[in-house]
Amino acid sequence: MSKLEDIVNLCKRRGFIFPGSDIYGGMAGTWDFGPLGTVLKRKIMNAWWEFFVEKRDDIYGVDAAIIMNPRTWKASGHTETFSDPLVECMNCKGRFRADKLGDFQADVTKLDLDKALVKCPTCGQHAWGEVRQFNMMFSTHVGAVSDETSEAYLRPETAQGIFTNYKNVVDTIYPNIPFGIAQQGKAFRNEISPRDFIFRCRELEQMEIEYFVHPDTWKENFEKILKECHDFLENKMKLPAEMIHDVEVEGADLAHYSKRTIDVEFDFPIGREELMGIAYRTDFDLNNIARESGKNMEYRDKNTGESFVPHVIEPSFGVERLVMAVLTAAYEEDTVGDSARVVLRLPEELAPYRFCVSPLLKNKPELVEKAKEVYTKLREKYGNVTWDDSGNIGKRYRKQDEIGTPKCIVIDFDTLSDNTVTVRDRDTAEQVRVEIKEL
Amino acid sequence: MSKLEDIVNLCKRRGFIFPGSDIYGGMAGTWDFGPLGTVLKRKIMNAWWEFFVEKRDDIYGVDAAIIMNPRTWKASGHTETFSDPLVECMNCKGRFRADKLGDFQADVTKLDLDKALVKCPTCGQHAWGEVRQFNMMFSTHVGAVSDETSEAYLRPETAQGIFTNYKNVVDTIYPNIPFGIAQQGKAFRNEISPRDFIFRCRELEQMEIEYFVHPDTWKENFEKILKECHDFLENKMKLPAEMIHDVEVEGADLAHYSKRTIDVEFDFPIGREELMGIAYRTDFDLNNIARESGKNMEYRDKNTGESFVPHVIEPSFGVERLVMAVLTAAYEEDTVGDSARVVLRLPEELAPYRFCVSPLLKNKPELVEKAKEVYTKLREKYGNVTWDDSGNIGKRYRKQDEIGTPKCIVIDFDTLSDNTVTVRDRDTAEQVRVEIKEL
Repeated sequence: MSKLEDIVNLCKRRGFIFPGSDIYGGMAGTWDFGPLGTVLKRKIMNAWWEFFVEKRDDIYGVDAAIIMNPRTWKASGHTETFSDPLVECMNCKGRFRADKLGDFQADVTKLDLDKALVKCPTCGQHAWGEVRQFNMMFSTHVGAVSDETSEAYLRPETAQGIFTNYKNVVDTIYPNIPFGIAQQGKAFRNEISPRDFIFRCRELEQMEIEYFVHPDTWKENFEKILKECHDFLENKMKLPAEMIHDVEVEGADLAHYSKRTIDVEFDFPIGREELMGIAYRTDFDLNNIARESGKNMEYRDKNTGESFVPHVIEPSFGVERLVMAVLTAAYEEDTVGDSARVVLRLPEELAPYRFCVSPLLKNKPELVEKAKEVYTKLREKYGNVTWDDSGNIGKRYRKQDEIGTPKCIVIDFDTLSDNTVTVRDRDTAEQVRVEIKEL
Repeated sequence: MSKLEDIVNLCKRRGFIFPGSDIYGGMAGTWDFGPLGTVLKRKIMNAWWEFFVEKRDDIYGVDAAIIMNPRTWKASGHTETFSDPLVECMNCKGRFRADKLGDFQADVTKLDLDKALVKCPTCGQHAWGEVRQFNMMFSTHVGAVSDETSEAYLRPETAQGIFTNYKNVVDTIYPNIPFGIAQQGKAFRNEISPRDFIFRCRELEQMEIEYFVHPDTWKENFEKILKECHDFLENKMKLPAEMIHDVEVEGADLAHYSKRTIDVEFDFPIGREELMGIAYRTDFDLNNIARESGKNMEYRDKNTGESFVPHVIEPSFGVERLVMAVLTAAYEEDTVGDSARVVLRLPEELAPYRFCVSPLLKNKPELVEKAKEVYTKLREKYGNVTWDDSGNIGKRYRKQDEIGTPKCIVIDFDTLSDNTVTVRDRDTAEQVRVEIKEL
């Protein structure tokens, strides 16, 4: 099995992540976080919010609706250009993302597929229809009338919920520039072929910041934010620096509105792929909104009196990719003594449980009682503590290794006489004897 | 102005809550939380999660996708029955929720409207078409084919994301019964007439628990959960007990699957309305899923060896209604000295900012420097501290009263010599002199 399959299986087996709507055979491109995955995801999202919003005083949060006025997507260009090339096999009627059928670009044509003699991955025939652009926004109808006037979209990114509230924030909070607006929330993309576990989903969770700066200062602010993102990834998510790679996007790959973009890539099990990105978006978005809404997007500097449309640096994170990176960095198969094990070396701050408390034997009431006492105390102090009295102690260690619990605390007969417990370390598998009061 | 309008205006003026897609003239039934509202909403949601999930060891979290396999809604009955009566005025083509055009029930007919001589609220004519059932689920198409086979819905409740994961949770976590599964997340309802600020939105945030119990124990578990919900509302949300009313739902109003439901109502500015509900749902949902999926939903008790389909007690909270209740309880207009003011008496744990730090005068660098020092220290210690050096000190107090900041700390010339500051209390408007180190 590949490492990706190993991780997918572990996630399902231990209650981190299940296929969406699993009980009904699934729903392609969606995933449900189980009890442990929900804790991990929440810890990652809360760590991000604390790092980028709560701990600093220049970034404000917003929480905008997923269903936005359709003019949002007209102004942003999504209605026109947020699409992937779609092609249908005229033989089996299968539909595919045309650029992924070989080494093609987004502007691939039927002619390109024909020239390259590309065969249908499903039926093996060569019978392509015309390539057409397929818009990835999910469409729905709002209100009791179901026609063109009521059509609306699920947001394909959280960024526009920030830009459309820029003026509201400036008018109510009057922040000094530079300042940022941050949002966490769902985004939806109707991917033609969702794939690679939670790497490319149809429903995803984003964490984005639009950082508004004076146009003359974009270069230093870009550098500052890039550094902060690395600080977050390396010191809060504890991702190994050697697995993180900055890729300067150049030339034709650069979006037309961006003067600089860095893709921060990560060594995923599926290869080196984008984990997050930082884009200098100039005044593109605010100018689009000014044109579409007829409203003035200028910021007036209270200190200098200067009025200008701010430029924007945008760091954009996908939660699922971050979860996948954290799991990738943590997953390991090694040997303890002479037995093989799977271990999730999650950082202590992100592990679903910090401690596991166990009585050595389940059928000795005095051990169970003492263990419950230790468990209750630790839970009150730390919150995320689990109890395990299933199977034998070796099996419990294996299970806690798999879910990434850093320390297992075992109450045995010595505990009853000397108030010490065995503390077993996940990473080294070493056991030490510690007094209860020192835990 | 009504109290509701006062609250709506305050929310917009101070950056708590804006109409959704405000810059483009809005999007009916959606709301965007601004910087202060986002903090308030997060604090409420985190307090709920801590109270119902983190602090106890019998409730597990899940975080399921919003777009679910359509069989979910067939099994749950939503496809068939999650609808409101819709009627069109044949004169002006306006569409209305028929039961809200007068004192009608959900099964209102054209005949009822005709008999009661109901006129169109828009054009004043009496020319109703037939009443038809309008399904409130938002529909969309998933994948590159747009036909009946690809139709899917945005979840109208978070509950079914829990029920469909019941078996996953039981199989991976093996919890002892009774146990609960909790979820926070968005739900979508295509209301014909969204209204009353954030009380009835098309896009809402829910917090729900399905608590699985042995069928014989539902009564005591219902009472236990009811008590816990009151504990949360009164002691964590600090809602006055006298504004909270339990309404036992009886007879025909009781859902056909429920043997007991309590609507917990609150004295909103729009009247006494439902804040949350607790329903005993029997084994209705798990049996629906068993039938639709063909899978066994039985739980096997490890201690007794008994196998049974658990029964369910469901406490269901809407975040927006809770935000509205907290704002309603906090909003007050009173007089300080001889000047009128608006004050939000938010509990300290929920206020967006715990402290505001100000220099008495903005143009005295020594005061500003000392104030920044105090501000930085308090921020490091408490996080949610704001800085205000705008206008005069009276204006700052009014502003902080409006956003609910419990304490304002002012640095003046005395501070420079004796290291004391003025601490002004939001609720009493009283000022006391305190040493910096005691803050």
